[in-house]
Amino acid sequence: MKNLFGAIEAGGTKFVCAVGSGPDDLTEVRFPTTTPQETLGKALAFFAPYKGQLKSIGIGSFGPVDLQRNSPTYGFVTSTPKPGWADTEFAGVFARLFDLPVGFDTDVNGAALGEQRWGAAQGLDNFIYITMGTGIGGGVVAGGKLIHGLVHPELGHMFVPKQPDDTFAGQCPYHGDKCFEGVAAGPAIGARWGTPAHELPADHPAWDLQARYVATALASLVCSFSPQRIILGGGVMGQAHMLNSVREKTVQVLNGYIQSPAILENINEYLVLPGLGDKAGILGAMVLAEQAFDNR
Amino acid sequence: MKNLFGAIEAGGTKFVCAVGSGPDDLTEVRFPTTTPQETLGKALAFFAPYKGQLKSIGIGSFGPVDLQRNSPTYGFVTSTPKPGWADTEFAGVFARLFDLPVGFDTDVNGAALGEQRWGAAQGLDNFIYITMGTGIGGGVVAGGKLIHGLVHPELGHMFVPKQPDDTFAGQCPYHGDKCFEGVAAGPAIGARWGTPAHELPADHPAWDLQARYVATALASLVCSFSPQRIILGGGVMGQAHMLNSVREKTVQVLNGYIQSPAILENINEYLVLPGLGDKAGILGAMVLAEQAFDNR
Ligand SMILES: Nc1ncnc2c1ncn2[C@@H]1O[C@H](COP(=O)(O)OP(=O)(O)O)[C@@H](O)[C@H]1O
Ligand SMILES: Nc1ncnc2c1ncn2[C@@H]1O[C@H](COP(=O)(O)OP(=O)(O)O)[C@@H](O)[C@H]1O
Ligand SMILES: [Zn+2]
Ligand SMILES: [Zn+2]
Repeated sequence: MKNLFGAIEAGGTKFVCAVGSGPDDLTEVRFPTTTPQETLGKALAFFAPYKGQLKSIGIGSFGPVDLQRNSPTYGFVTSTPKPGWADTEFAGVFARLFDLPVGFDTDVNGAALGEQRWGAAQGLDNFIYITMGTGIGGGVVAGGKLIHGLVHPELGHMFVPKQPDDTFAGQCPYHGDKCFEGVAAGPAIGARWGTPAHELPADHPAWDLQARYVATALASLVCSFSPQRIILGGGVMGQAHMLNSVREKTVQVLNGYIQSPAILENINEYLVLPGLGDKAGILGAMVLAEQAFDNR
Repeated sequence: MKNLFGAIEAGGTKFVCAVGSGPDDLTEVRFPTTTPQETLGKALAFFAPYKGQLKSIGIGSFGPVDLQRNSPTYGFVTSTPKPGWADTEFAGVFARLFDLPVGFDTDVNGAALGEQRWGAAQGLDNFIYITMGTGIGGGVVAGGKLIHGLVHPELGHMFVPKQPDDTFAGQCPYHGDKCFEGVAAGPAIGARWGTPAHELPADHPAWDLQARYVATALASLVCSFSPQRIILGGGVMGQAHMLNSVREKTVQVLNGYIQSPAILENINEYLVLPGLGDKAGILGAMVLAEQAFDNR
């Protein structure tokens, strides 16, 4: 019999909870993220019938989160502006109530693990998973393992040159129009053009500008990490035409500097969509559960 | 008796060759980098008397270099514009003539290893060593190991926002004024102000601008890798006042986004000079030798 794991993809707008063992064995529910009491209550209720069968639980959470094992607030959602959620204990609640090992990481780190295990990064030791939606974030795997470091990567806040034809003031509360998220997250696109990003038609000039920002950020990541592949997820990549445009422009921006066939000849395999589609997050949480069980 | 290792720090302007076992046991010679025949000849001659005593040789080389083990040109200097050096076999020459294991990596990756073993990154699993001199480059250690990935990091070519008061056209042959090296390497400083960087006085406006570029690049690296420390080497950091200015401006540029005491309270321990001073490169080559011996 397969091991049964619990998984939570905790997003700022919705929670996904699942039990199972992998892509072909996954029972899930989804509900909106409201107050911590209500939302965590629904999650606990979902897992309750599986108590005794689950080996462990994995949580990929929106942030900021505390990932320092020796910290008194390890496993908490910390300084989020999301009403009611600041300084909320998360992993510990499940560990205590189910008496199980609980794996805990950021949602994007979880998704990166999911892609490595079952998706577009299988067999790769060095890659980046980046998601562009309400915010921009990413997980970075180097030497086969997620980078945590000082805190964890915050790819959305890397600095990018302003495109000369862009007069938008930017909307990162910390970095204005200086950082990637400030100019290129979904809400920034919506605010720049006065129409929500998902309503802008495919031939709108928004997308050429967007692709240039994404290409510049990806080129920086290529030069600074030398990943073997970059996986592009999130709502903004829901624009089907974006992928090819980003590929083309990334090659242009690098301008032949990185002399690798992966970029010069095979960009279509270098910049790719998530292999697991929108299941990367929940399946990644399952990998976090597995790892927690293995390291128990 | 200690193991005796051979080490080569192969720079574009000078070679350093040494035998020894660490910082307290190091016999070295330096000579200018001329033709490959003459330069490699001098290096071979330096090591010849130690044949039979050496366990292995480590080489940290200027690039670009081929680090793909399965490539027919592994251990070569490849497409360098440096006259005579394009497509030059390097590691293999020493391996054959001395019949020893030879470790081979970029000069900056070597320096990062040196700092990890004996310098400012002791005990750290995630850090960056960056050098700002004739070019800008760096080594990135994640999970205790150097990142190689697709090729190897090329930190100098990450993209940085142009400072609004800077009209310099930039001088990266690939990226103009878009990349870090294009606006902030020593020669870019010299060209912008019409005076070599090392001759500009400490109160010249060049240094405030320079510190802003460096701070922006470091802030991007902090957001994208989350290193536990960044080590700043190279001639440009020879300006004693730069270090504090860069620390201050990096904190300003991050603007409170990364909520870590390492940045908010202890920036002086977060951004530091190399612990090994100008010996990081040659001692790093010695670590490459050790590793080649251990993995033989
Ligand atoms: N098909 C689409 N094309 C362009 N933008 C989209 C599309 N779908 C969603 N978005 C934008 O992406 C953002 C939501 O991102 P998404 O990844 O779906 O959710 P979240 O980041 O909240 O998990 C919104 O700003 C929305 O306008
Ligand atoms: N004390 C100094 N202050 C500012 N710039 C310096 C200083 N020393 C060297 N430089 C500049 O650094 C560059 C040389 O870098 P360096 O790290 O010494 O050598 P390389 O990169 O060739 O190994 C030159 O552009 C030089 O003008
Ligand atoms: Zn930002
Ligand atoms: Zn460049």
